[in-house]
Amino acid sequence: MANSNAVLHLKAMMMELALDRPLDMHLHLREGAMLELVAPLSAAQLAGAVIMPNLVPPIDTPARLAQYRAAVAAAAAPYAFTPYHTLFFRAYDEATLNAVRDQIIGIKLYPEGVTTNSAGGVRNLDEAEQTLALMEQLGIPLLVHGESHGFVLDREAEFLPVYRRLATRFPGLTIVMEHITTAAAVALLDELPNLFATVTLHHLLITLDDLAGGLLQPHLFCKPIAKRPGDRQALLGAALRPHPKLMLGSDSAPHPIDAKEAAGCAAGVFSAPVLLPMLAELFERHDALDRLQAFVSDHARRIYAIDPPPRRVMLIREAWRVPDRYGDVVPLAAGQQLMWSLAPFV
Amino acid sequence: MANSNAVLHLKAMMMELALDRPLDMHLHLREGAMLELVAPLSAAQLAGAVIMPNLVPPIDTPARLAQYRAAVAAAAAPYAFTPYHTLFFRAYDEATLNAVRDQIIGIKLYPEGVTTNSAGGVRNLDEAEQTLALMEQLGIPLLVHGESHGFVLDREAEFLPVYRRLATRFPGLTIVMEHITTAAAVALLDELPNLFATVTLHHLLITLDDLAGGLLQPHLFCKPIAKRPGDRQALLGAALRPHPKLMLGSDSAPHPIDAKEAAGCAAGVFSAPVLLPMLAELFERHDALDRLQAFVSDHARRIYAIDPPPRRVMLIREAWRVPDRYGDVVPLAAGQQLMWSLAPFV
Repeated sequence: MANSNAVLHLKAMMMELALDRPLDMHLHLREGAMLELVAPLSAAQLAGAVIMPNLVPPIDTPARLAQYRAAVAAAAAPYAFTPYHTLFFRAYDEATLNAVRDQIIGIKLYPEGVTTNSAGGVRNLDEAEQTLALMEQLGIPLLVHGESHGFVLDREAEFLPVYRRLATRFPGLTIVMEHITTAAAVALLDELPNLFATVTLHHLLITLDDLAGGLLQPHLFCKPIAKRPGDRQALLGAALRPHPKLMLGSDSAPHPIDAKEAAGCAAGVFSAPVLLPMLAELFERHDALDRLQAFVSDHARRIYAIDPPPRRVMLIREAWRVPDRYGDVVPLAAGQQLMWSLAPFV
Repeated sequence: MANSNAVLHLKAMMMELALDRPLDMHLHLREGAMLELVAPLSAAQLAGAVIMPNLVPPIDTPARLAQYRAAVAAAAAPYAFTPYHTLFFRAYDEATLNAVRDQIIGIKLYPEGVTTNSAGGVRNLDEAEQTLALMEQLGIPLLVHGESHGFVLDREAEFLPVYRRLATRFPGLTIVMEHITTAAAVALLDELPNLFATVTLHHLLITLDDLAGGLLQPHLFCKPIAKRPGDRQALLGAALRPHPKLMLGSDSAPHPIDAKEAAGCAAGVFSAPVLLPMLAELFERHDALDRLQAFVSDHARRIYAIDPPPRRVMLIREAWRVPDRYGDVVPLAAGQQLMWSLAPFV
């Protein structure tokens, strides 16, 4: 009898999974050779992605934006992939915002110095008021790296009052808390109607223990830093539910191995190549495969009111071993065996 | 007038500092080539040190102890340096403890798997009772790496009840909480008469922010991991006071650069070459130079009832730049300028 149960269970196991227009709402594609390396890995499995603007120099003029749009489009061909571009937040006048409005999905705000290439970020949010008012008026969402300059574990929690202030002061502005890492940020979603969030794959999987509990793992080092088990649990609970104001945003951020295995290791987890396979594995482990579609696409399409061209991405139950490196970049789960594969592009 | 004040201040500045028999009560000297490299750096500035036994294989037989004693003595010559040896905790019978008793200062207990080479550590403290009773009877102190197997930031706090239980169950046993990192551990010192502690130089200086708040700094990665600003402040306050039950124990733990700047970075800060100069700088910054002697020697001599041979170590106010490496090991404060130097050995 035990055997026949096992057989029944096996029969019920899904062997493939179709996702309608999966989207990564927070992605770093870089430029030059790194862009060429990583863009196809995301474009192969996504209908689109929100592309972050923290380059050197940042994407903060219409001309720079046009140039980067062309570079990303070239690197992502031949896939049916829609890059949703962003500007790097600074004071913009109405003419500039009007000129770029149809070419961007939002503007990304970094407090000065909190992460990779954020040296030109915002020092004083009061000085940003005029631009924020214009964005509210023009319907341009605000995407925020929400960390204070305090103690590393407290930075996100300390920034939450800023979200509260911004969302209240600009009730017509869509505000996205990017890559949230704490239970407190999850709770804030239910407090303010115009506040939304992305969460990364890796923050659904790891805590500070995975970074520093055994040997130190530089390839799991990212900003915001992974927090406590209770935080991870709250994030995972919200993703699996799935919380209607929460979207997948991988924050996949490639750095060459020499910048990671070094004194002064750069912040960023390169999850792009394993994004959907690992999400399928995670959602399946929690009996929530049927809710993956909403988390990886439906919520984002509703929140941002976007409608990417039709594209169905197939995952199949076929084990594969994650390569140790893509070029000179070490991916998340390098060398590990995953149970779900991307079906060959059709 | 301002000028003459400045001159007065300059005149009051100490230009040299004599320390009577400074001791490092927690030191990793390793074996072989690493021992040859690091032992002279500690022996040059210390009258003695407690030498940790977590080697492969561990120091846990009289024969292995005799061999390691000879190796350390050879490596530390020609300095007037007294190594205080330890055994790796396991079940020992009375005959063995009697045989080694005069050759060791204590027995070091590692819970299984919590740090470098602790795979053979203790799984169940109840099984240790008989040996602990013998140690109490023979007057052999117990030195403990006090961490649970919980979340990395909670491990020391979770272990404190074990200290409380041991200290109460064996009131005649001298118990040393090694390399404490939390305000809670400092507070526990005042609760139990037979409980003492060491604290490292680096835990007086850094928090988790220094490890992971900016770029990730593998050379500041250690176990127990550096904690919150409030914890550092409590440790520093106790060292500067100086708390009569607190001793300097550097936990200087050299690893080759290839084991630090790597995926899977080993835990350990190599502070030996800068130990007394950086302590002098720290105590001076807090107007506590006159209390350094107690912290680096007097307390340890009283607590352990040891009397190392006379040795005066001189520090002079002379700036120097810490080398980037000693052999293939990166020291604490590599490349930085320090204000106090060790006077040439006389």
